[in-house]
Amino acid sequence: MKRVYNFSAGPAVLPEEVLKEAADEMLDYNGTGMSVMEMSHRSQSFQEIIDTAEADIRELMNIPDNYKVLFLQGGASQQFAMIPMNLMKNRVADYIITGQWAKKAAAEAEKYGKVNRIASSADKTFSYIPDCSDLPVSEDADYVYICENNTIYGTKYKTLPNTKGKTLIADVSSCFLSEPVDVSKYGVIYGGVQKNIGPAGVVIVIIREDLITEDVLPGTPTMLTYKTQADAKSLYNTPPAYGIYICGKVFKWLKKQGGLAAMKERNEKKAKILYDYLDQSKLFKGTVVKEDRSLMNVPFVTGDEELDAKFVKEAKAAGLENLKGHRTVGGMRASIYNAMPIEGVEALVAFMKKFEEENL
Amino acid sequence: MKRVYNFSAGPAVLPEEVLKEAADEMLDYNGTGMSVMEMSHRSQSFQEIIDTAEADIRELMNIPDNYKVLFLQGGASQQFAMIPMNLMKNRVADYIITGQWAKKAAAEAEKYGKVNRIASSADKTFSYIPDCSDLPVSEDADYVYICENNTIYGTKYKTLPNTKGKTLIADVSSCFLSEPVDVSKYGVIYGGVQKNIGPAGVVIVIIREDLITEDVLPGTPTMLTYKTQADAKSLYNTPPAYGIYICGKVFKWLKKQGGLAAMKERNEKKAKILYDYLDQSKLFKGTVVKEDRSLMNVPFVTGDEELDAKFVKEAKAAGLENLKGHRTVGGMRASIYNAMPIEGVEALVAFMKKFEEENL
Repeated sequence: MKRVYNFSAGPAVLPEEVLKEAADEMLDYNGTGMSVMEMSHRSQSFQEIIDTAEADIRELMNIPDNYKVLFLQGGASQQFAMIPMNLMKNRVADYIITGQWAKKAAAEAEKYGKVNRIASSADKTFSYIPDCSDLPVSEDADYVYICENNTIYGTKYKTLPNTKGKTLIADVSSCFLSEPVDVSKYGVIYGGVQKNIGPAGVVIVIIREDLITEDVLPGTPTMLTYKTQADAKSLYNTPPAYGIYICGKVFKWLKKQGGLAAMKERNEKKAKILYDYLDQSKLFKGTVVKEDRSLMNVPFVTGDEELDAKFVKEAKAAGLENLKGHRTVGGMRASIYNAMPIEGVEALVAFMKKFEEENL
Repeated sequence: MKRVYNFSAGPAVLPEEVLKEAADEMLDYNGTGMSVMEMSHRSQSFQEIIDTAEADIRELMNIPDNYKVLFLQGGASQQFAMIPMNLMKNRVADYIITGQWAKKAAAEAEKYGKVNRIASSADKTFSYIPDCSDLPVSEDADYVYICENNTIYGTKYKTLPNTKGKTLIADVSSCFLSEPVDVSKYGVIYGGVQKNIGPAGVVIVIIREDLITEDVLPGTPTMLTYKTQADAKSLYNTPPAYGIYICGKVFKWLKKQGGLAAMKERNEKKAKILYDYLDQSKLFKGTVVKEDRSLMNVPFVTGDEELDAKFVKEAKAAGLENLKGHRTVGGMRASIYNAMPIEGVEALVAFMKKFEEENL
């Protein structure tokens, strides 16, 4: 069996011990005589899986009791519609545009009401996070929306925006569970799991109870109504059961690592190895302003497209996979999520050093 | 390792060799050094997985070239909204009510237009399929909707309704790939995969190309627009990749079994063992009129609730799992999907005979 260091932006690397357990349990989960894939979602065994997953993420994120945790489908892209359909009571919302995902979310919300783009970093290819300490938040805004960690551009809010009392909604797909958060600062905090938690096909939505109402926009599908999903505890219809089971295993793994404070420390240590090298390299340079750098996604370039392509190709041959940057940034991107071991980052930097020596 | 005979209505039994392959490939798919769960959906490896899956289901179902095959999320319940949002151009549709799922689909469609319930078998607890040879199909109906195999009540259309020229839409969740179908008779044929094909979290939609338009109802989310999904070949956003991979393995398994004609033969043989026994039993009786019996879901009762409960409990102890009937029918239900081996049905009937002797 071969294992590579997989720097994919998502779906992305998962903890090896989680995969091993899943393989071991594939034909017989916990003495049930069946795979979790074969298990009725109304069975006691599955109820225990989803209840334990919820309890563990609540513990990891210290989620207050007045928030619901929903395991849904359709990814963040479906939330782009579900959020305005459920929350745009005044049909007005403010969006801060720090990259493609916030842009797409804003465009989708425009189907349902007025969208004010109250800040943007488009002027410098989204290489920074705008100052959000005193934004022109709309008086009648139903919420202020951010994408907290931008997967493509490698930025991360280090301070949450001052929403001037408005509800904050955050897409945290690419920084989910990478460090402690104060959930009480958000109305909704949500993300697709396929970057930092589990297999694609599950989106976790953590939503304050007072935002869950029957008063949704006309034509909102039953499945896209938070109240339906909250009342049914994510079991209105058959959930993505196997994905939830893997997420649950990752939650257990995170607890074993010491929880989110320990993950933050580890993630900072991993990112520092890469950023420190980038800051002194004569060949490679990071594309994001220092103070807004993501711990999860690290884009970098040589400034020479041909050399970039050569790097990606040779890195792949050396077992360092998926380092090609997003087409809108070019160059390279190393996604170093929770499950990327420090050895993977060390191997990457060692390879970069060697490449620099050979190609400068 | 223990394996039981799992008669769950869904999620349900999968072919053991598919699960074994999935377990073997969990840490290293095909020499890539990563799990399919960890693989970018934009990678060549995943593109091959989804392309092969599509090619195989096209071959199995003999899907005409003017139909698209979409791998989506949200289950049949989300299709209940997606269908009217995309197809209700006149805002009128006809629904034939043969159980809970058709009922739910009709109720959801009422959010978007006028729904005519042109036939129903509610008068006899959905124990039969209404005569659909000459129904009052609405002149301006955008489509006629059926649930082709009712999982809860155990009925199946043996002849498709005469739609008088209107587009036929069918939910085939619980009979998907159980026998050959003539796809050209349908506008849309779709189903959640968690009964007969794979893990929950994937819904396959086979849709005639002329029905895929930009002209959808106002407020239709981008993700719920067939055109978005068709144009992106199911990769508009991250798809439920691992589920699609398992579906692909089941398609290969079905081809190895001889395809859908062979499956039909095998499914008829399996069902006959159970129905023949029910027809002569003095203790158990089937709840569905003979001519409308499903090959997949077989409900039966003793007429005595306590005895039913005793049966379910003792069957479970004997390794025959999930035989409890749906609460709206009571009694028992054996779901005997493609992956249920004939030995499982034989074991069930042997157990029923013994139970009958002991309890009559």
